[in-house]
Amino acid sequence: MSERVLVVGANAAGMTAASRAKRLDPRLEITVIDAGEFISYSICGLPYYLSGIVSEHSDLIRFTPEALEQQRGIRARTGLRADLVMAGKRALACTSLADGRSHELGFDRLVISTGYLPRHPEIEGTDLQGVLTVSRLEDGLRIRRAIDTGRCGRVAIVGGGYVGLMMAHGLRERGLEVVLFEQNAHLFDQIDGDMAELVEDELRRAGVELHLETRAERLVGRDGVFVAVQAGRERIEADLALIDVGILPNTRLAEESGLALGISGAVQVDERGMTSQPGIYAAGNCAETFHRVSGRPIFSGLGTSAARQGRVVGENLAGRRSAFPGTLETSIERVFELGISRTGLTSKQAWQHGFECDSVRIRSRDRAGYYPGSRPMDVKLIFERRSGRVLGGQIVSAPQAAKRIDTLVAALSSGMKLRDLAQLDLAYAPPMGTLWDPIQVAANVGLRKLD
Amino acid sequence: MSERVLVVGANAAGMTAASRAKRLDPRLEITVIDAGEFISYSICGLPYYLSGIVSEHSDLIRFTPEALEQQRGIRARTGLRADLVMAGKRALACTSLADGRSHELGFDRLVISTGYLPRHPEIEGTDLQGVLTVSRLEDGLRIRRAIDTGRCGRVAIVGGGYVGLMMAHGLRERGLEVVLFEQNAHLFDQIDGDMAELVEDELRRAGVELHLETRAERLVGRDGVFVAVQAGRERIEADLALIDVGILPNTRLAEESGLALGISGAVQVDERGMTSQPGIYAAGNCAETFHRVSGRPIFSGLGTSAARQGRVVGENLAGRRSAFPGTLETSIERVFELGISRTGLTSKQAWQHGFECDSVRIRSRDRAGYYPGSRPMDVKLIFERRSGRVLGGQIVSAPQAAKRIDTLVAALSSGMKLRDLAQLDLAYAPPMGTLWDPIQVAANVGLRKLD
Repeated sequence: MSERVLVVGANAAGMTAASRAKRLDPRLEITVIDAGEFISYSICGLPYYLSGIVSEHSDLIRFTPEALEQQRGIRARTGLRADLVMAGKRALACTSLADGRSHELGFDRLVISTGYLPRHPEIEGTDLQGVLTVSRLEDGLRIRRAIDTGRCGRVAIVGGGYVGLMMAHGLRERGLEVVLFEQNAHLFDQIDGDMAELVEDELRRAGVELHLETRAERLVGRDGVFVAVQAGRERIEADLALIDVGILPNTRLAEESGLALGISGAVQVDERGMTSQPGIYAAGNCAETFHRVSGRPIFSGLGTSAARQGRVVGENLAGRRSAFPGTLETSIERVFELGISRTGLTSKQAWQHGFECDSVRIRSRDRAGYYPGSRPMDVKLIFERRSGRVLGGQIVSAPQAAKRIDTLVAALSSGMKLRDLAQLDLAYAPPMGTLWDPIQVAANVGLRKLD
Repeated sequence: MSERVLVVGANAAGMTAASRAKRLDPRLEITVIDAGEFISYSICGLPYYLSGIVSEHSDLIRFTPEALEQQRGIRARTGLRADLVMAGKRALACTSLADGRSHELGFDRLVISTGYLPRHPEIEGTDLQGVLTVSRLEDGLRIRRAIDTGRCGRVAIVGGGYVGLMMAHGLRERGLEVVLFEQNAHLFDQIDGDMAELVEDELRRAGVELHLETRAERLVGRDGVFVAVQAGRERIEADLALIDVGILPNTRLAEESGLALGISGAVQVDERGMTSQPGIYAAGNCAETFHRVSGRPIFSGLGTSAARQGRVVGENLAGRRSAFPGTLETSIERVFELGISRTGLTSKQAWQHGFECDSVRIRSRDRAGYYPGSRPMDVKLIFERRSGRVLGGQIVSAPQAAKRIDTLVAALSSGMKLRDLAQLDLAYAPPMGTLWDPIQVAANVGLRKLD
């Protein structure tokens, strides 16, 4: 009899694990279940669906359950919530959300890829109608329906993290008024404050009403419906409130089933993705990973990291020996006309992890100054003070140029120092670069701090 | 008395050496001489001056001699040809091209950065009026003057190397008819033939009349003026002929002064840029360098490589110990709506250098398929068959996406294998990438060939 693999959670990690395993070993009988209505969608594409750049939500979906079965030979069941792993019995207790009925699904091996959950702020009013978090495609559909009624002209966003920025961009592009509340001095703590300022300027330029160092203290309702944010003495009215105050690994299933959690709070796994129970794997944002620079266990909310973990688990399911090399928490976003990217540690993170570090920040250009369309490119490098080893990097630039962070990704992955970066034979032509690449300029300026 | 440094040749290598040395040791008394009329210009910008994107040739010039002296404290003298290094006497014999008079310039240390010379094909008619090679800003001015008369509607380009492609692009954008002759089966041997085909398609799409496997046998003149190219039985008329059949290191000064040449034909230097004569350096395209993958001595015609060599020599002039780490011959070009980039060895080069290699080529996209403006991205990787070590890479894509070659530059510089590439934590967001970066897709497909 062929081996049964059951995958809980049908997005980046789960879908990649299932697809990879099936490809390498077509005899595996793989079923993917998900509590949601959709599977295999690009949550990163949501802002473009809200802005209208992507017109149909189906464009964000890679596979319907039917297509998945036909094209990949993988079964999918939606609307099915996983409740408990019965490891001894090799079965998963589930509830069908449509009718509330219980099911048991048998398996030989199990993959938990339940992703993350949005954190809820401890303030009054989060249960009002018109208050939403954004972590699933269903949330996006609800927001878009609200917009499409034409009665939603103004949106309040509570929290300026990744999701908050993306929502601000998407909704503003759609023509809505957007007001954003961030309790810290700067938005988006994935980059240092001096770089975040560039993003804040861009948001203001695009007409986002920005309230930094402002705590949304209460969501005000009228007849159960959200109408305003109370922040200090100010009451700012809006038609919809989106909450982005962080995320948590979705470990409920793992915890209730007695699997060990790691110190980051995510499900503990070894480098092959195996949990504390043999034959039970975890992958993606619910599973702990480690940072490639600091070596520390972390919880990562990135889809790229999730997909890569899923791939490793998929290979191990198919009998290969594959190990996850950790994450650099590389990310990139487009916020209006800016690209923002980062990899490795921020200055703050580097200090927190005990690195004696310094940083350098330069402004150069993404192409020759005389070439039309040339735009500023800000590069920041964080490096170890004694050795010059590069610990992290950040870019704020035109959208496409921010993808050059990948040069730093390769450099960090091989432990390069500023001197190595300075001597890379990077590509140059006037329409796509400068004779000395901005990353190299930063490395050269940084080297002066080492002498 | 302060030390006198004399630099022969005032472009990428010479200017960088002079600037870097002066910056590190302001006491140095530095003079840069050049046989041409201009110094410190971007020859890479020439196609954009010809197309009209850059309106004034002065936009391509970084420093005039006056600005150089005022802003950097470096003297420059133009129109001065260097004839002989008298090493014992520590003097350089020169000729002023304006009046033919001889000069002697004393020095304590000398830098030879005389660049490259265009190769002349051994065919009849290269001395006709209207036949030009393109290696200096003066050549560009001459071509643009010819175009600006309005009597030059059709240009023949002999040779489809880097310069030929750039000229075809610039002149076609300007609205001229362009006919290009390449004697080999494919253009641009810096990339493999299968990738070059994409470039050939783009040239044809843009209306360039392409004659592959066609040798221009004779340049036909009338009253001493070029009128047509004879190729086999065909006689193709044109108003101007531009020749690009390769380049040679400009070693005349070095050779006549008794300096040793390397096996590549360029001036032999050690890793610090010192020639066979102590105190005499060479940098840039006239100087030999070595390939970072093959380890072999080579002659490189790239401006980036020249500038990097110049920087190393400048540091050594200022008393630092700096070594050139070699080149990957990384390059990038824009040809109409395509970007073409490459680094390391091509398949052909890898075999020639004795590597047991294989290659993989994939087509992916430069951003999410559902995101507007998403375009195909072709990636080729060349790798060692046994170890999976990456030896080279090539990209043909939208212009900006071709700059992603730098990821491979960093990877090759640290000796990464396909497996390492496949596990890089590269950046993804729908407007600037795909969940699995095309480089990673290529690495993953390549890995299957290793098993």
